[in-house]
Amino acid sequence: MTISVIGLGLIGGSMAIDLKRRGFADKVLGVENEPVNASAAEKIGLVDKVVPFGEAVREGDIIIVAVPVGAAVRMLPEILDIFREIGATDKIVIDTCSTKSRIVRSVHYHPFRARYVATHPMAGTEYSGPWAAMPNLFDGRACIFANSEESDPKAVNTIEKMYDVLNMRPIYMNADNHDVHTAYVSHISHVTSFALALTVLDKEKDEKHIFDLASGGFSSTVRLAKSNADMWVPILSQNRDNVLQVIDTYIDKMKEFREAIADYDEDRIRGLIGEANRIKKILR
Amino acid sequence: MTISVIGLGLIGGSMAIDLKRRGFADKVLGVENEPVNASAAEKIGLVDKVVPFGEAVREGDIIIVAVPVGAAVRMLPEILDIFREIGATDKIVIDTCSTKSRIVRSVHYHPFRARYVATHPMAGTEYSGPWAAMPNLFDGRACIFANSEESDPKAVNTIEKMYDVLNMRPIYMNADNHDVHTAYVSHISHVTSFALALTVLDKEKDEKHIFDLASGGFSSTVRLAKSNADMWVPILSQNRDNVLQVIDTYIDKMKEFREAIADYDEDRIRGLIGEANRIKKILR
Repeated sequence: MTISVIGLGLIGGSMAIDLKRRGFADKVLGVENEPVNASAAEKIGLVDKVVPFGEAVREGDIIIVAVPVGAAVRMLPEILDIFREIGATDKIVIDTCSTKSRIVRSVHYHPFRARYVATHPMAGTEYSGPWAAMPNLFDGRACIFANSEESDPKAVNTIEKMYDVLNMRPIYMNADNHDVHTAYVSHISHVTSFALALTVLDKEKDEKHIFDLASGGFSSTVRLAKSNADMWVPILSQNRDNVLQVIDTYIDKMKEFREAIADYDEDRIRGLIGEANRIKKILR
Repeated sequence: MTISVIGLGLIGGSMAIDLKRRGFADKVLGVENEPVNASAAEKIGLVDKVVPFGEAVREGDIIIVAVPVGAAVRMLPEILDIFREIGATDKIVIDTCSTKSRIVRSVHYHPFRARYVATHPMAGTEYSGPWAAMPNLFDGRACIFANSEESDPKAVNTIEKMYDVLNMRPIYMNADNHDVHTAYVSHISHVTSFALALTVLDKEKDEKHIFDLASGGFSSTVRLAKSNADMWVPILSQNRDNVLQVIDTYIDKMKEFREAIADYDEDRIRGLIGEANRIKKILR
């Protein structure tokens, strides 16, 4: 099987590595518009060959769209158009984006809609680019299939097998639900990390040595603030309504803490921390 | 040398382990008011013996106060009083608390003030209790000495040697500065994690399966929300003014994100993320 990966960053690159290494793909073609990244991807050996977009779509049995969601929304109908032009009723295109509502809406009425499987492999690091790609990134993590009833069942089955090779467990979900869930368990934590970084960086202007004291706790809380703007701008923008709702709840919680601390109300601080501690039972 | 550790939790217990194991202490006495923790500490072998408070103070060459800062502020003058009663001009007491202004103020005029060395070993995990104690917890981390000019230089020197055995690098700082710095690089990240946990736990009431999607990023951002209320209530309360100032800056940053997302202002979101990304250059 030939796999074409469009976007040779952390996700696309890591999929390319394991799908080839584990024998699911005989050949991996890559598309990468950024020349430096394209050369790096070839040099690292992420893909067999970097090719133009049209060639990748025409040659690949499975086309993996692993670009920021804004670009993916523009690209996906083009790919289905090519499928239609060449009458490719056996090719499959998937995306790996972190928001799903808008992208599934963008091709809802496309005559080749059934050849598209919307997925979100829930794995990653705060790094990006082909040099961030790594083996085993997806092992043991969840992969969402969104609105899979709109896809051809055989196509879904093939993609299930592909993610099985990546050792991911599938979860099936409506695209709108997916976007609510990810706003809570992924998108908000990026915004809180960005805001934390900005807060401390602001202070650093006056206090040069403030980071000398940064502990492991600070590093882990702020880690996601290293995340890439190209990826996160369209996610936050496309998932606007859900993200705003979570931000509002979150700011309310911060204000509750603020008030309790301002009032020296130790019982209330204790109550809030005690409630927050319930997270122990939930996180592994 | 006999070391008495008051409070056999994560910090006290971990110091006990390495000071004994690495030969700095010949004997380690422990004080622990919570009976279950006291039995556990003896059973695990954190200390040679659990003894009453007075005995620990009288027998120890170095007394390590490793209890929540509220209790430490009450306990420290009592210990210096005992030193004075028995004319112990060679004993040393240290604390390990995460706020320093109030505790150094509490004994500023004590006739035996010079026997006290205020320290803050910047290490820890989100777990607590004697079962959370572990070897090598402090290796490579920073230890703050606050207002060390108020302590006897020989006492400071002994404690420097002790922390050297724990492989910590000393940083010398004024207590008030310490509290500003830790508000930014430690205390705020606990508050943001607590608030994040509360936000998601609130939503979980409606959406039972929300945590199925929790990724590694979420886990690391929310990790500190497992932290213990007994420790954190007095820290937030004692460092009230600094913490409030950081919370206010932080809420402003969250609101900037909110506004940019609400306005679909992708350039502004990109600008904020780009600024936040500067954290990369700072964190190792």
